[in-house]
Amino acid sequence: MKADEGISVGLMGLGVVGSGVARTLLQKAGALARLVGRPLVLRRVLVRDLHKPRTVEVPRALLTTNPEELLANDDVDVVVELMGGEHPALEYLQRALAAGKHVVTANKEVLAKHGAVLLDQASAKGLHLRFEASVGGGIPIIGPLTRDLLGNEISSIRAIINGTTNYILTRMARDKVDYATALREAQGLGYAEADPTNDVEGIDAAYKLAILATLAFRTRVHATDVYREGITRLEAKDFRYAHELGYQIKLLAIGRQVNGAVQLRVHPAMVPLETSLAKVDGAYNAVEVEGDLAGKVMFHGLGAGALPTTSAVVGDLLEIARLLAANAPVVQRLALDPDSHVCPMDDLVTQYYMRLNVADRSGVLAQIGRILGDLDISIASVIQKDADRRTGTAELVIMTHPGREAAVQEAWRQVARLGVTDRLNTLIRVEAA
Amino acid sequence: MKADEGISVGLMGLGVVGSGVARTLLQKAGALARLVGRPLVLRRVLVRDLHKPRTVEVPRALLTTNPEELLANDDVDVVVELMGGEHPALEYLQRALAAGKHVVTANKEVLAKHGAVLLDQASAKGLHLRFEASVGGGIPIIGPLTRDLLGNEISSIRAIINGTTNYILTRMARDKVDYATALREAQGLGYAEADPTNDVEGIDAAYKLAILATLAFRTRVHATDVYREGITRLEAKDFRYAHELGYQIKLLAIGRQVNGAVQLRVHPAMVPLETSLAKVDGAYNAVEVEGDLAGKVMFHGLGAGALPTTSAVVGDLLEIARLLAANAPVVQRLALDPDSHVCPMDDLVTQYYMRLNVADRSGVLAQIGRILGDLDISIASVIQKDADRRTGTAELVIMTHPGREAAVQEAWRQVARLGVTDRLNTLIRVEAA
Repeated sequence: MKADEGISVGLMGLGVVGSGVARTLLQKAGALARLVGRPLVLRRVLVRDLHKPRTVEVPRALLTTNPEELLANDDVDVVVELMGGEHPALEYLQRALAAGKHVVTANKEVLAKHGAVLLDQASAKGLHLRFEASVGGGIPIIGPLTRDLLGNEISSIRAIINGTTNYILTRMARDKVDYATALREAQGLGYAEADPTNDVEGIDAAYKLAILATLAFRTRVHATDVYREGITRLEAKDFRYAHELGYQIKLLAIGRQVNGAVQLRVHPAMVPLETSLAKVDGAYNAVEVEGDLAGKVMFHGLGAGALPTTSAVVGDLLEIARLLAANAPVVQRLALDPDSHVCPMDDLVTQYYMRLNVADRSGVLAQIGRILGDLDISIASVIQKDADRRTGTAELVIMTHPGREAAVQEAWRQVARLGVTDRLNTLIRVEAA
Repeated sequence: MKADEGISVGLMGLGVVGSGVARTLLQKAGALARLVGRPLVLRRVLVRDLHKPRTVEVPRALLTTNPEELLANDDVDVVVELMGGEHPALEYLQRALAAGKHVVTANKEVLAKHGAVLLDQASAKGLHLRFEASVGGGIPIIGPLTRDLLGNEISSIRAIINGTTNYILTRMARDKVDYATALREAQGLGYAEADPTNDVEGIDAAYKLAILATLAFRTRVHATDVYREGITRLEAKDFRYAHELGYQIKLLAIGRQVNGAVQLRVHPAMVPLETSLAKVDGAYNAVEVEGDLAGKVMFHGLGAGALPTTSAVVGDLLEIARLLAANAPVVQRLALDPDSHVCPMDDLVTQYYMRLNVADRSGVLAQIGRILGDLDISIASVIQKDADRRTGTAELVIMTHPGREAAVQEAWRQVARLGVTDRLNTLIRVEAA
């Protein structure tokens, strides 16, 4: 940093979020300089194509396709990485840190897979590595978890952190639209990508949960530690039955301390209708954190989009710039607990909603009941829906009392082998209020 | 700070929150020391009565009734003020800063009346002055406003920040209880004090709004700059009519940028039933912040109580301790905008709900309509309720289109002078979604 020149930013990526950040640095330059005490200067912008038409007016001279012009540039103090994807973003971040540059990134994939390594590298070099934008868009959540709530023992995190799936589920629940239609709509609105796998299979949510859980539980969590199930198998009738039973279906990311281990899972869940999480609609995100002191605190807002994510990036950038301007040392925030570990999904104990089509004849329910009973899963209620005379099948909706995941999965397999089921439809875990 | 002895805390006040903080410092000493890198030591506790029986086991030798044992004690690094009230807390805080001690306080009254002076004093001496606990109990809001959302131009804050009144209003709305009964209940539960004035007249909420508005709008706001109206005049039927019209009644604290000035007000408001604010129930608090980048972000949680407030105090204390342990300089966060000012309540433009009892005869509504029309207040709907044949009066509920506060107040006075009104009951401002 050259004091008279302000703090220099090298921006990687000029997509929707990169454009928002560039526009903010250029258009709000005066206000940002007053907050920092010296200018925040956009020094270089890495793009893939110099000639692509852009909505943001970045001086052509700042654009480059050569990463060296940021990474090997002594004039760049902070690298802001908004390219997304694992490679080459990971390598660029590692090289930026190796070159003594502070880093702001929104890259949840890189953080969920390589966050611990990057944090160690930043720490060893005395550099800032900030990533508020990686989870929850414009909702401050990394900051509160690592600072304001730091005195708490966090017992659980429950979050709706993928706007695409929440939009689809909201449409299915509220407007009785089927999955394929809701997905097409989300694609039309730009909420879902042409290949929606990352969102609808819960991959994006699992990345974000891995980041939150690392901070909240001080556990080294890798993306693959998160149990994951997407929303593609949900049907319109599941939403109808859920409502009848007093629930909303949401794709939840759940992290919970259970007997000294951390349970981590992303899957559709039945959430009681009267809870705040059930009321998070459309493209909104929400993160509920429960601590021993604070109790339940909920953070709610726009979880994606150019401007909300820009808010998070610029917040991190301002914080780093103010600390640099004050010559403050980097205070490392994350002390991992070496004893903490992730517990296997098999050990989960919760309630389940099961929907299955069975032969509509006597004795079938007794057979299913016996399988569940033998596996210590007790039934809270059974409702028979839609008997179909033509096919001779009936639809059963079973709500269980809390049972063990391993037992429920085994029961599901045994029921399939009974030869009385036409289709095993949906198995949805139920969250208490 | 003596490095080998850790960071020393002088605690002022051992009421419910003070006890929570003392207990946390004593019981979580190991975990807190790991977070800071050195111990956080409770050095001295100022109490009024040494011999009072207490729920928290603080070693007797730490207790003192003499403030000098904290203020003039070189061994105290950080003073945590949890006494409440304006005096002598203000003088103690000033003396603590003058003596070079960092300060954590939950004292919203002192901050709302003298915050600017204290912040200047802390800044001049290079000291930390933190007050997350002064607003919203365990909800992180000061931190997010001053750090994570700093890149935003904040256009509005709307908050439910007094748990006592929100409990009372929730009981009145949901369970049709009248004001006096709900207040007695709140007192029985310990939510309301024997003299409830501070809560029910909106004084507490106005203090908190003054603090939030200073940070969000970078305007020097004094408690007396906030327009304030309490909840004591609301009647059960207002809640019934509000519901019929699609609203919930909440005591809102509103800060808004309007044409370069800041509008600040605390009063009962009609909030559309489907909004998040309408759903904040019981003793919960919520703060909704709208920024140009982040959009609407909502923070929700327990706004009072020993443990939630302890969460905020300990969060501030940990942050200060980590910075002290790293020998980091104090980075001042608040740069006030000297041009920003508070605008007069008369200039408010909003919708109004009016309930009044009038003589049940022809021509009366026309007279009222003429007064409103002459003052440029147009009527959105009129509903006649509960005609009372015995007294010959009828109850009118009028919803206006947006009108100017000064005009509405003048209309209210003119209607009173008409001689057709038995009673002017309630005038409630309406908030848009």
